[in-house]
Amino acid sequence: MDTLSVPQVISSQDLLKHWQGHRALTRRVIEAFPEKDFFEFSIAGMRTFAKLTDELLAIASPALKGIVNREVKPFTEGDTENLTTKAQYLQKWDEATKEINDNWAKLADEDFSVTFNLFGQYEFPIIHNILYFIDNEVHHRGQGYVYLRALGIEPPFFWERQ
Amino acid sequence: MDTLSVPQVISSQDLLKHWQGHRALTRRVIEAFPEKDFFEFSIAGMRTFAKLTDELLAIASPALKGIVNREVKPFTEGDTENLTTKAQYLQKWDEATKEINDNWAKLADEDFSVTFNLFGQYEFPIIHNILYFIDNEVHHRGQGYVYLRALGIEPPFFWERQ
Repeated sequence: MDTLSVPQVISSQDLLKHWQGHRALTRRVIEAFPEKDFFEFSIAGMRTFAKLTDELLAIASPALKGIVNREVKPFTEGDTENLTTKAQYLQKWDEATKEINDNWAKLADEDFSVTFNLFGQYEFPIIHNILYFIDNEVHHRGQGYVYLRALGIEPPFFWERQ
Repeated sequence: MDTLSVPQVISSQDLLKHWQGHRALTRRVIEAFPEKDFFEFSIAGMRTFAKLTDELLAIASPALKGIVNREVKPFTEGDTENLTTKAQYLQKWDEATKEINDNWAKLADEDFSVTFNLFGQYEFPIIHNILYFIDNEVHHRGQGYVYLRALGIEPPFFWERQ
């Protein structure tokens, strides 16, 4: 029996496309913020969307790189601390998009069920680490939608993923 | 070759567990709202968390039932319009949890790649309909976290899924 003929609940390529679709939407949300509000606006003392984006950037590409290389490194947000404009964030976002695509190509189907100690803290099968990245992004982006609404700005459609 | 020996990116059982884990967290968020605020509090004219919960309940179990029975029905939120207490919502939530488990058992691995016209509107492979339910819930729950923070209430931990 050819392995290709065995049905997958979701294929690796399809999961990548799903993740990058979410990342494309988050990129639109960054774009939707006025420059000043991206760095300054928040509700109830929560983090600004720039700070939330720091977290998202510190997870997605660095975490996948760690997974692919089976290299356990502590979580750090230092990489974006010098960014001061939305344009710089968007550039960093696009660099991460490419890195994710490149590293994803190194993941075999059998890797997803392997346990990996992400950031030396989260010891789970790789598929659950990856689903966590996606969910965490959707969660924080949901906050960003409330910030945009509170600023009187119409957020992008949730189903828009290109 | 035994099909069981072929690596899955994610197994059907694991995806169900992932979804129900998110639903358990959303249940905690409903619980965290003060009774009155669940029905009345909102930011910037967005829906209350009760209204968002109406949507989540109108999607999850009814949509999965439609998928399993390949029965195309329009989307409707009518089922929860008479609920007036958090306790009633939580009961409805728990009923949906059981229905989802029961209907999930009827999905075979090969079903996930089959295209289904959800609510007569969203024609996608079943896996993408299901991922959409989960993402939509995480998205709206993210709004709920902002509502709770604005009310001075500490939301449940995002990683708490039991």
